[in-house]
Amino acid sequence: MRTIQLTIAYDGAAYAGWQVQAEQPTIQAAIESAVHKITGTPTRVIASGRTDSGVHALGQVASFDTESRLTAGQLQRALNAELPHDIAVLRAVDARPGFHAIRDCIGKRYRYVLHDGPTRDVFHRHHSWHVRQRLDVGVMRQAAGPLVGTHDFRSFETQWPNRDSSVRTVREIAIERRTDHPSLIDFEIEADGFLYNMVRAIVGTLVEVGRGARSIDWPTAVLAAQDRSQAGATAPAQGLFLLRVDYPPDVLLLVSDHAAAETTRGE
Amino acid sequence: MRTIQLTIAYDGAAYAGWQVQAEQPTIQAAIESAVHKITGTPTRVIASGRTDSGVHALGQVASFDTESRLTAGQLQRALNAELPHDIAVLRAVDARPGFHAIRDCIGKRYRYVLHDGPTRDVFHRHHSWHVRQRLDVGVMRQAAGPLVGTHDFRSFETQWPNRDSSVRTVREIAIERRTDHPSLIDFEIEADGFLYNMVRAIVGTLVEVGRGARSIDWPTAVLAAQDRSQAGATAPAQGLFLLRVDYPPDVLLLVSDHAAAETTRGE
Repeated sequence: MRTIQLTIAYDGAAYAGWQVQAEQPTIQAAIESAVHKITGTPTRVIASGRTDSGVHALGQVASFDTESRLTAGQLQRALNAELPHDIAVLRAVDARPGFHAIRDCIGKRYRYVLHDGPTRDVFHRHHSWHVRQRLDVGVMRQAAGPLVGTHDFRSFETQWPNRDSSVRTVREIAIERRTDHPSLIDFEIEADGFLYNMVRAIVGTLVEVGRGARSIDWPTAVLAAQDRSQAGATAPAQGLFLLRVDYPPDVLLLVSDHAAAETTRGE
Repeated sequence: MRTIQLTIAYDGAAYAGWQVQAEQPTIQAAIESAVHKITGTPTRVIASGRTDSGVHALGQVASFDTESRLTAGQLQRALNAELPHDIAVLRAVDARPGFHAIRDCIGKRYRYVLHDGPTRDVFHRHHSWHVRQRLDVGVMRQAAGPLVGTHDFRSFETQWPNRDSSVRTVREIAIERRTDHPSLIDFEIEADGFLYNMVRAIVGTLVEVGRGARSIDWPTAVLAAQDRSQAGATAPAQGLFLLRVDYPPDVLLLVSDHAAAETTRGE
């Protein structure tokens, strides 16, 4: 039995999120169906975490076990041929047997895209949150500063408590207006893990500061309150992208496509 | 009677092009329907040129005549409230009576987006042409150089002859790989006017050079041949964006929203 690690991009606009649900198209269902078709075996595919309906990924990571003799590169090409065009496997590699995309995860990075132009952007309508008021990037950056570090983030968790602990370490928050498209703002946040809706609750809170409705120190007060009702609204799903998922380096096996192909031919 | 000039963006993915067609959704039909609803009068809306099925616009220009008392700014807001979310009116202004979006046009600029990564890009699948081979931007730029200037472009016109003359003046061709997304290449071309499918035929020809299948001087030979069968294939519609349409400065009237609003209130 081998364990394959996939890095996946998807446009979440047409999906009811990652997780398999009856009667609704999901990313997991599409990928499991493609793996089944290619390997001939019904297979569970586990992602680093569920993404909600409408949320996108540029670098989701998932894993599955298989008896397939195809090399990882062959599996990637076969999956891309089977999958709908709004899902793409960017990389497939052999992982250490037992690798598990949730348990082994040591960090993630998300991007949230804000659009603050006066008129809707027809090309980013499914991939940003349109806030009509001009946002002040400088004050949002200042307001976000104190959220970096190790804190109890329960004020930014929907349906707290739903994890053992609501303490997380935010390693970085970066907020930049795009130079080539100055009505789009990229908010990026990296942490050892995230609570349910944490990124969207933080963005919803910072936008209140950016549009001048709240003071720069308000997000710090919300964090300290440990009370979800103090924070801003949850920003809508369609602005959120899972950018990257991090694992320790030793989870991957060094199996070159060439070596695996040789083995297959030798049998 | 007033003449209104609109600047319009649209995502062409869901439309059978600009021009009204029976039984098919078109940009023109959507805008004429919105104008009719707002002004109460069936109204013809003329664009600077038709765009084909699947082609996009960041700055299409259109014009219509109306008896409406709404200011241009009020018309813009009302149109954006009526229009589907993949069409947006970026600007509405009063034009000189008799302004005509086709006849008065003195130039246009198009962008064509190429994606040359190994795996499909799920976020640009409706807005670029995916060429799997790596393209050499430097050689495409060299090959495009001799196309700038005044030439007979019939080799790059589908269904020649369909205009009085196939002589056009290309003012600029710019080809740049995006720094923030290095598997996307922006090809931009500006001219006093374009023949049918001219941008897509030029792109299809330059891509042959960029992927190494043809020599750098081949596009110049195609131009000189004055024969469409010599050129490369027509690049697919979904990579093409109408960026900008130019008019002489005197086509617009200086009617401020404020002054027009005062007039309306005074009646």
